[in-house]
Amino acid sequence: MRLSHYLFFTSKQVPAEAELISHQLMLRAGLIKQVASGLYSFLPLGYRILDKVVSIVREEMDKAGAQQLLLPFVQPADLWKKSGRWDEYGEELLRFQDRKGSWFVLSPTHEELITDLAAEILTSYKKLPVTVYQIQIKFRDEIRPRGGVIRAREFLMKDAYSFCEDEEQMKDIYERMRSAYERVFSRCGLDCKVVEAESGPIGGDISHEFIALSPAGEDKVVECNSCGYSAKLERATSIPSQQVDKEDEKQLEEIETPGVKSIESLSSFLALPMRKLLKTIIYQTEKGYVGVVLRGDYDINEEKLKKLLKAKEIHLASEEEVREELGMEVGFVGPVEANNKLLFVVDETVMQGKNFVAGANKKDTHFVNVNPGRDFSPYLVGDIRFVSEGDKCPLCGSLLQVKRGLEVGHLFNLGYRYSSKLGASFLDKMGNKRPILMGCYGIGVSRIPAAIVEQNHDDEGIIWPMEVAPFKAVIIPTSNETFNFSQQLYLKLRDVSEEILWDDRDISAGVKFKDSDLIGIPLKIIVGNTFLKEGKIEIKKRKDGQLIKVSKEKIVGKLMELMQYG
Amino acid sequence: MRLSHYLFFTSKQVPAEAELISHQLMLRAGLIKQVASGLYSFLPLGYRILDKVVSIVREEMDKAGAQQLLLPFVQPADLWKKSGRWDEYGEELLRFQDRKGSWFVLSPTHEELITDLAAEILTSYKKLPVTVYQIQIKFRDEIRPRGGVIRAREFLMKDAYSFCEDEEQMKDIYERMRSAYERVFSRCGLDCKVVEAESGPIGGDISHEFIALSPAGEDKVVECNSCGYSAKLERATSIPSQQVDKEDEKQLEEIETPGVKSIESLSSFLALPMRKLLKTIIYQTEKGYVGVVLRGDYDINEEKLKKLLKAKEIHLASEEEVREELGMEVGFVGPVEANNKLLFVVDETVMQGKNFVAGANKKDTHFVNVNPGRDFSPYLVGDIRFVSEGDKCPLCGSLLQVKRGLEVGHLFNLGYRYSSKLGASFLDKMGNKRPILMGCYGIGVSRIPAAIVEQNHDDEGIIWPMEVAPFKAVIIPTSNETFNFSQQLYLKLRDVSEEILWDDRDISAGVKFKDSDLIGIPLKIIVGNTFLKEGKIEIKKRKDGQLIKVSKEKIVGKLMELMQYG
Repeated sequence: MRLSHYLFFTSKQVPAEAELISHQLMLRAGLIKQVASGLYSFLPLGYRILDKVVSIVREEMDKAGAQQLLLPFVQPADLWKKSGRWDEYGEELLRFQDRKGSWFVLSPTHEELITDLAAEILTSYKKLPVTVYQIQIKFRDEIRPRGGVIRAREFLMKDAYSFCEDEEQMKDIYERMRSAYERVFSRCGLDCKVVEAESGPIGGDISHEFIALSPAGEDKVVECNSCGYSAKLERATSIPSQQVDKEDEKQLEEIETPGVKSIESLSSFLALPMRKLLKTIIYQTEKGYVGVVLRGDYDINEEKLKKLLKAKEIHLASEEEVREELGMEVGFVGPVEANNKLLFVVDETVMQGKNFVAGANKKDTHFVNVNPGRDFSPYLVGDIRFVSEGDKCPLCGSLLQVKRGLEVGHLFNLGYRYSSKLGASFLDKMGNKRPILMGCYGIGVSRIPAAIVEQNHDDEGIIWPMEVAPFKAVIIPTSNETFNFSQQLYLKLRDVSEEILWDDRDISAGVKFKDSDLIGIPLKIIVGNTFLKEGKIEIKKRKDGQLIKVSKEKIVGKLMELMQYG
Repeated sequence: MRLSHYLFFTSKQVPAEAELISHQLMLRAGLIKQVASGLYSFLPLGYRILDKVVSIVREEMDKAGAQQLLLPFVQPADLWKKSGRWDEYGEELLRFQDRKGSWFVLSPTHEELITDLAAEILTSYKKLPVTVYQIQIKFRDEIRPRGGVIRAREFLMKDAYSFCEDEEQMKDIYERMRSAYERVFSRCGLDCKVVEAESGPIGGDISHEFIALSPAGEDKVVECNSCGYSAKLERATSIPSQQVDKEDEKQLEEIETPGVKSIESLSSFLALPMRKLLKTIIYQTEKGYVGVVLRGDYDINEEKLKKLLKAKEIHLASEEEVREELGMEVGFVGPVEANNKLLFVVDETVMQGKNFVAGANKKDTHFVNVNPGRDFSPYLVGDIRFVSEGDKCPLCGSLLQVKRGLEVGHLFNLGYRYSSKLGASFLDKMGNKRPILMGCYGIGVSRIPAAIVEQNHDDEGIIWPMEVAPFKAVIIPTSNETFNFSQQLYLKLRDVSEEILWDDRDISAGVKFKDSDLIGIPLKIIVGNTFLKEGKIEIKKRKDGQLIKVSKEKIVGKLMELMQYG
């Protein structure tokens, strides 16, 4: 491809709207362009990367035995009402009416449609198991799109669905998908972690995520380097950094703490570590007001709290509610001598400690030597905290690490959630009707290029791994004297590979080098002074700067070798 | 692929909702499935066909030098307001609000977005010409979706856009696209006609359509076998079958025609040919009421009428309006002694005739010997009729033929319609700012499989051309005794081609043959009696029934040959 006539641009300016390095670099390299909040175009250069990712995903899905199909992006509302998600999904589900007034949604995912298809076709055990997939756009009306194509509203996704007779078949397919995913991400040059995960609005019991580790990631992963334990922060458990207090229970006392409302200021006011302070957070739930009690050094994990409470929705009580409905003093709330409307849900680490400080439900006052059990009675006790730095592995006791990452793939064992609601059942060998056991498997195809950039860049720009590079090599003539030869070389190389770019633009060699580094082409084929003096072409690797001199007779062979093996 | 575990079904029943043969066969063969009106899923078998069409389109677009990209399907309304199409497009443009209340559309086409991109990037003559394309879903909220994937609401389209400096570059690209289209359709096995066409809501001046001839088509094409003239019926012109009346003008007379309201009944009542009768149709337009006068043997072409009137919208006046606003008698309307609010637009063929019969604007009364010019004065005269059987070629005078067909591709020279409204201009060699000259080029990718079926089927089902067949061959064991060998054969062939289906289903050989004929697999590999008796495998061609016997040693080579050359 001739770069002069390519729909392409680069920019030196760091775009103001872009925080993440991948977002900045993809915009600056002209790979993507924002059309509106969370809506992006992939320009030709960016599309070539996306297309290579798509090809890798297709190859690995086909190898895993999945059958590709295409479901409509616009879906009628009725199936969503049948599955219950019309009500459950919330505002990310974009709903609209057509010209006749019928309701539709823009697909955020396709469980309903595919289950409906399966219900009609997969009626006998003889046809099971079956796995299908599609690579298609999805829409989720995110309130805060983020990071360019990392969290866009419209995005490209690979979604696969499996239909099985029993857990044995399911396990086999789940494992096959898992290893297909490992191959996909490794071919994309991504360093990924597989972790246990929550299944969220998709539902189901067992679920794993593939997380591309990156400081820019919005997901947190807990891992143990000793035994290999790893999990999403949301569902990770731990042994707390300091467990059981051995001291005796002391006498409860009230102290004055004028204006000391936050847990941090209380810690410095009393010169006590955070772990000796209790924080009490008031939630409104289906069961009434709930006071959540945690050690000061932990944060509340609302997902765990919801599970423990078996509640669908919870939300923080407002200051007004705390003051007026409960008659309690904001900033000095605590579990001792509290309003008896309040149920206390207590983190297990609190129950193992002694002589805490807690709010006294009076202005400017705290209790010291608060002892759980003695001074207040929990309604429920459980693990409702996020794992924190310094916690230990629940399996082997070694120190845990908390890392950031980006979800790129997700495996779900859906159980019978959709097949039972949408009537997808089959006749088994004995002639009995049974619901189909389903799994679903997503890959965030259009965020993969961004994840790769997060893991593969330097100060100059992107460093594409060979298999997903938009072009594998760029021919750069450094002066007018070498332009003609560079053209001959391009025409010759074009016949053997579609992976060669020719920078024939009428600009300085310096800008050409800078652009090539920014957009991350793995190999620069430099036709410059060395060519004029020695008749040799230089090939420079983007990754490590290695420079290889080749005669023009050997350039084709050498280049093919480098393009294949890096 | 093992057919037993394929998401696949066939049906003997002709679906009640399907009129067209392609729609019936695609449903019966389990290629597509309706999700809601105008919304279809492509099941795995159907998707393989679609995917092959997509590959052909991509290859030919790439060869033609077009650069692939991907624009968002959900578009913000603002660009549509800028181009004026927010108001012009009508109800097929699906508009909706996101959770924040901003307006968006589901893309029916992408001129706005791509012009906006070009405006930013293609700022110099040095970068022109550029052609880009995408293969992506579109949505048009058709009031009457039709023929399955032929006129669906959501469909897959290839849309390309070119950006040129001048008409010379434009012509070059237009021709390159035109020959790329010829290769695409010929590789798909389609018999297509290229015709001049209207550009409709896309706009622009020059436009050609590729029409796949088929009795099921909703488009009509006029063609001359002598000189090669061809055009869409909408814009075809002709020399009328009988032109100028040579007779003298006779005396105007009123006659009684009790209850004779239609042009057909008038023709038999008076024993006169239709061409001697005038029909007068009343339209409401921006210019007030217009009476359109045509010969009885022609139909009104509203597009031509609109152009002649330079009107944006016209619609038929209601009977009430004719009666109450104009005081005229429905069924007996005519141009003589009519309400003088009415402007008459008269087809040119009327002006060349004499002594017509026309309604007298009184109940049960007509005039005879009506002579245009003498008895009424036209406001406008022009070609406002559809070409009719028996008309002659406007270029060479030979007899024209009217055929039905299906639009599969469209080329437009857009002129400056979008570039001027959206500010896409470039600096030319002289440093002057000039608008970019644009073209756009569509292929209805997801309707191509249906068009192929329309042209390639028999009573048993579909006959896929080799290049777009979902699988090129199916192995059919005809009994339990040959099942094991068929499996060995499948495993061996699977290693050399992904195009082989193995019908391992536990059903009769008869049903397997019927299914294979219905879904249209080009080659049946029969492992049956001949194999048991002579050790030979039979290959039967779907197209002509030819039967070839091959030894098992030679099967791979023979099959590869047949799969490549048919």
